Amino acid sequence: MKSAIYVEKGQFKIGEGERRAPASDEVTLRVGYVGLCGTDLHVYHGNMDHRVCPPGVIGHEMSGVVETVGAEVSGFIVGDKVVVRPLDYCGECPACDAGHSHICHKLKFMGIDTTGALQSYWTVKARTLHKLPGTVDLRRGALVEPLAVACHDVARARVAAGEKVVVLGGGPIGQLIALVARARGAEVLISEPTPVRRTYATDAGFSTFDPGSGSLTDHVMAWTGGKGADIVFEVAGVQPTVDAMTEIAAVRGRICMVAIHSAKAQVDLFKFFWRELELVGARVYEAADFDAAIELIASGQVDVDALITSVRPIDDIQLAFETLDSPDPGMKTLLECA
Amino acid sequence: MKSAIYVEKGQFKIGEGERRAPASDEVTLRVGYVGLCGTDLHVYHGNMDHRVCPPGVIGHEMSGVVETVGAEVSGFIVGDKVVVRPLDYCGECPACDAGHSHICHKLKFMGIDTTGALQSYWTVKARTLHKLPGTVDLRRGALVEPLAVACHDVARARVAAGEKVVVLGGGPIGQLIALVARARGAEVLISEPTPVRRTYATDAGFSTFDPGSGSLTDHVMAWTGGKGADIVFEVAGVQPTVDAMTEIAAVRGRICMVAIHSAKAQVDLFKFFWRELELVGARVYEAADFDAAIELIASGQVDVDALITSVRPIDDIQLAFETLDSPDPGMKTLLECA
Repeated sequence: MKSAIYVEKGQFKIGEGERRAPASDEVTLRVGYVGLCGTDLHVYHGNMDHRVCPPGVIGHEMSGVVETVGAEVSGFIVGDKVVVRPLDYCGECPACDAGHSHICHKLKFMGIDTTGALQSYWTVKARTLHKLPGTVDLRRGALVEPLAVACHDVARARVAAGEKVVVLGGGPIGQLIALVARARGAEVLISEPTPVRRTYATDAGFSTFDPGSGSLTDHVMAWTGGKGADIVFEVAGVQPTVDAMTEIAAVRGRICMVAIHSAKAQVDLFKFFWRELELVGARVYEAADFDAAIELIASGQVDVDALITSVRPIDDIQLAFETLDSPDPGMKTLLECA
Repeated sequence: MKSAIYVEKGQFKIGEGERRAPASDEVTLRVGYVGLCGTDLHVYHGNMDHRVCPPGVIGHEMSGVVETVGAEVSGFIVGDKVVVRPLDYCGECPACDAGHSHICHKLKFMGIDTTGALQSYWTVKARTLHKLPGTVDLRRGALVEPLAVACHDVARARVAAGEKVVVLGGGPIGQLIALVARARGAEVLISEPTPVRRTYATDAGFSTFDPGSGSLTDHVMAWTGGKGADIVFEVAGVQPTVDAMTEIAAVRGRICMVAIHSAKAQVDLFKFFWRELELVGARVYEAADFDAAIELIASGQVDVDALITSVRPIDDIQLAFETLDSPDPGMKTLLECA
């Protein structure tokens, strides 16, 4: 079968992979579409070789169809449309014990720490699967995983109807967070310096702000009648957004840390005390977030189509990463693997 | 009447004050005891002159007896033993609107922004009062305000029975937090570099750790079987405790920011993402925290006597501050004003 193989920094190739038969608790999926994300780009940049151990197959935002079912698997039959929640947890550590298996101390992220979806067939544990309703096609299905990230972020921040939400960073995850927050009844402002990303946001009906154009704090205070934002999502991962997050939050405002900060940042802890702010970290997702994401797409509450800016055959894997790494990467690139 | 007057940096004097008659919504209290705290020491150091506007009377940890009752005050009669929740809020700003009047945008902290309790009589709004039960004497009553701070911190951190709590900093507030957390059923470890403060903690029955003696992280991981602390209180306000707070917290651990950080600190935001940590700011208290503090003292669940290390007449105000500013300040100094 066909596999997209990460060879080394900056280099993918198409090769022949071996289709693994499912163990008793596994299924083999015929892969439909695989989306590329910022983490995949980190792999492409060679920053995650210690986890990927190239050569290897990556990819974790996917949709597919059940092809073969292991002997002890129930609840899934050949032909089911599914998505994979790509978390392989130990079930035994203190975090798993406490019910937080998505932050398992020994978590293996499938598609990074183990073989991923960028191939014709993918064999995975049945416990990772979520069924897609008939009305959700495989292209949209490939957006379930990043949408589940957004659902998790919005749930962690406890977004409620009528609240005013500022999203710092209008990349794919920022846009998805905005869509989910709006579906929950919030009013959303996206702060994003890149014009093309602001255009995506305004096309989706969101208010936007260019942080290069003036004071975001003044803008948010005017927008909220002097109260400040009920909720702030830090999705950019840079010092200016870390500065902004405490500036613009209301008394008792909740700040959700979505971005991955590779270095320590300067944080205004005084404001946490003074305004009783709350900072909540959010990592990947739980089963309920996948269910919520599927429901949001199936019900039409969230339209992910506009975010799919490119669909290419898996053979274009190298070109897809080169485009993702360019100044105009689009929003979401899908690779068709079937 | 007698007043302790803050004259200028490092200088208090005893003088003659004017006893103000209560307005219709006010009462005049005969002051019993006034405790001194870190904020008062900041005043003594001259750091809060912009708010105190010397010469002025400070003091906000107090107990007293109702002496005169304003025409429209109900619920209080002459002779009632009371404590004051020293928050003067506007009732009209977004924070007050949202039910968070203790973080009113225009909050006046009584005893800092307005005249305080270090005098024979103090006239205050009746809405600031909480009644002391007959069994709580005025000396213990003067500890209600700092204990309410601790109750607020413990409530903000959502401490639950059986949880493992680390308190970073064993000063008066740290010790009170430990007492309240234990009363809520938590197991508490206090990390504190000063031997005399560790002795207070061990005398009160707490586990302690000297952060100069080795790795706090290793110690906490061993103490929690590799899980990490369910809850961390940052009460020290220095970079090493900011480093420690994210190191020692468990997956989904809650960190309560009690300390006042006058400068931005380096914070490991990656760990907030990676372990889904939560940081919760806590400022002063709400009415329920005063009720909780009074109940904890009245029921004997929290014994504050051991923390009262000095009781002096108000005439010793200068000596009291000089001692508070010395290498051996004790835990809590009360001034007797009656």
